[in-house]
Amino acid sequence: MAFTPLHDRVLVRRVESEEKTAGGLIIPDSAKEKPAEGEVIAVGAGVRDDKGARVELDVKAGDRVLFGKWSGTEVTVDGKELLIMKESDILGVIA
Amino acid sequence: MAFTPLHDRVLVRRVESEEKTAGGLIIPDSAKEKPAEGEVIAVGAGVRDDKGARVELDVKAGDRVLFGKWSGTEVTVDGKELLIMKESDILGVIA
Amino acid sequence: MAFTPLHDRVLVRRVESEEKTAGGLIIPDSAKEKPAEGEVIAVGAGVRDDKGARVELDVKAGDRVLFGKWSGTEVTVDGKELLIMKESDILGVIA
Amino acid sequence: MAFTPLHDRVLVRRVESEEKTAGGLIIPDSAKEKPAEGEVIAVGAGVRDDKGARVELDVKAGDRVLFGKWSGTEVTVDGKELLIMKESDILGVIA
Amino acid sequence: MAFTPLHDRVLVRRVESEEKTAGGLIIPDSAKEKPAEGEVIAVGAGVRDDKGARVELDVKAGDRVLFGKWSGTEVTVDGKELLIMKESDILGVIA
Amino acid sequence: MAFTPLHDRVLVRRVESEEKTAGGLIIPDSAKEKPAEGEVIAVGAGVRDDKGARVELDVKAGDRVLFGKWSGTEVTVDGKELLIMKESDILGVIA
Amino acid sequence: MAFTPLHDRVLVRRVESEEKTAGGLIIPDSAKEKPAEGEVIAVGAGVRDDKGARVELDVKAGDRVLFGKWSGTEVTVDGKELLIMKESDILGVIA
Repeated sequence: MAFTPLHDRVLVRRVESEEKTAGGLIIPDSAKEKPAEGEVIAVGAGVRDDKGARVELDVKAGDRVLFGKWSGTEVTVDGKELLIMKESDILGVIA
Repeated sequence: MAFTPLHDRVLVRRVESEEKTAGGLIIPDSAKEKPAEGEVIAVGAGVRDDKGARVELDVKAGDRVLFGKWSGTEVTVDGKELLIMKESDILGVIA
Repeated sequence: MAFTPLHDRVLVRRVESEEKTAGGLIIPDSAKEKPAEGEVIAVGAGVRDDKGARVELDVKAGDRVLFGKWSGTEVTVDGKELLIMKESDILGVIA
Repeated sequence: MAFTPLHDRVLVRRVESEEKTAGGLIIPDSAKEKPAEGEVIAVGAGVRDDKGARVELDVKAGDRVLFGKWSGTEVTVDGKELLIMKESDILGVIA
Repeated sequence: MAFTPLHDRVLVRRVESEEKTAGGLIIPDSAKEKPAEGEVIAVGAGVRDDKGARVELDVKAGDRVLFGKWSGTEVTVDGKELLIMKESDILGVIA
Repeated sequence: MAFTPLHDRVLVRRVESEEKTAGGLIIPDSAKEKPAEGEVIAVGAGVRDDKGARVELDVKAGDRVLFGKWSGTEVTVDGKELLIMKESDILGVIA
Repeated sequence: MAFTPLHDRVLVRRVESEEKTAGGLIIPDSAKEKPAEGEVIAVGAGVRDDKGARVELDVKAGDRVLFGKWSGTEVTVDGKELLIMKESDILGVIA
């Protein structure tokens, strides 16, 4: 089962980063919410601009991205837990 | 009786997915609201852009789509319970 | 007395549908607010786009339409109770 | 003393309609706020569109109009109680 | 000391109208807030439209105007109490 | 150390006006917040319009301006207390 | 590991300024929140304007900038604590 995001949406697989706080300790000052890491699985065709032309997305399938921890909507595709979010929720690409 | 959605609206038949929580158990952590699944029955002609041209919709009748669980307005057409929603409420197309 | 709606407004006569809940029983789960049904009596000339051209309405007098139950402003024209609403309050056309 | 409304504003004289509720009785169900009736006294020259051209108003002096009961700002011109409102507050024209 | 309002701002001298309520009596029904009267002292050069051209103001120095009673910011120029407001706060011109 | 404001921002040095209320007395009716006076130290290059062209600012270094008392963000440049604000926070220029 | 901000976002390394309040004393009147200082590490390619052309950013890698103290999202790149923010959060450039 394939899933094609609509417009400027992106399908992202969350990647668990290794920087876990062992033991659940609260670390003051540096404990602010960090963004989450993920891999782009599929991208939409983009919205249309004022002239009707497609505005293609800047990210593409395979990109490793950072996004706001609470961004996106959870969706189950082929039993995998993925996220659908707007491209504007993505902060940047890790190369 | 046929029903034609206006502008960028879409008529959708909700499809019950099989992933029901048996017994109504509350499953922590993974119990976040999932999107709903549906089939597109009819689409509007689209809104007009700044030049007056129609912006045609990206989804079409027959498409299998995911949409936000609380999206749309319930409407009864020929005794069938359907939903009218904006195309922007649709997250993506399942192929 | 004739009444011409301004801009993108539409004059609608509400049509009572037959699906009344006999006895005022509360039916759980399916009792969500349904849209109302009506007939378009008159339409405005449309707003002007960025170039000053009229954007004509998609609905026309005589169309049978569905609209949000609480949409529009009540107005009495020739003793008849009608509703003035924006075209965007109309969900679609019944053919 | 003449008064010229600015931009897309309209000067309106309120006309009392005859459909008064005698005795101040509260009539349930049909007692929803009706729009008010008035006569257009003067109109502004219109705002300018993206190209700097004037967007002339659709109503003109002498038009009999309906408008939201609470629309407009009261102003006294030559001892007469009038209302200044935006053209968008006008629901339609009675012919 | 001269003062030139920026963009679409207007410098206005408030003019006390003679319609004072003698004795501070509260007059029901007609006691709704009336707009204030003033004289335009200076106008800004206007904002720029989408093409970079100036959108000149519709009011000019010397115009007698009505404006919302609570509009504008008080400013003291050469010992005189004046008001700076946006042109859109002006309801119309008295001729 | 020089500081160049970005986009449509302006660097302003606050100038204390002489109209101080001696003794901290509260003067009713005329005690409404007055705008503050300042001198423009540096201006940004302007934002870009829809066509990508720079929209140059209307104020320039050396201009004596009035601005809302609570406008801007305090910043210390070379030990001087200055304010960074948007040009739209400036009410007008004193000549 | 390199990180490329998306659209109009900027990657900034916070620089601690020397103007610390020794001893944690509260200094009234001058204790308002000052902006933070930082160095631009990487910039996005810019958003697209109405015609689809890129709007390049005004800041570039290496620029010393001031930004609102609470602007941006913390992100860890190669073990360094950096900030991702929109260019509009940057107040100006220190030369």
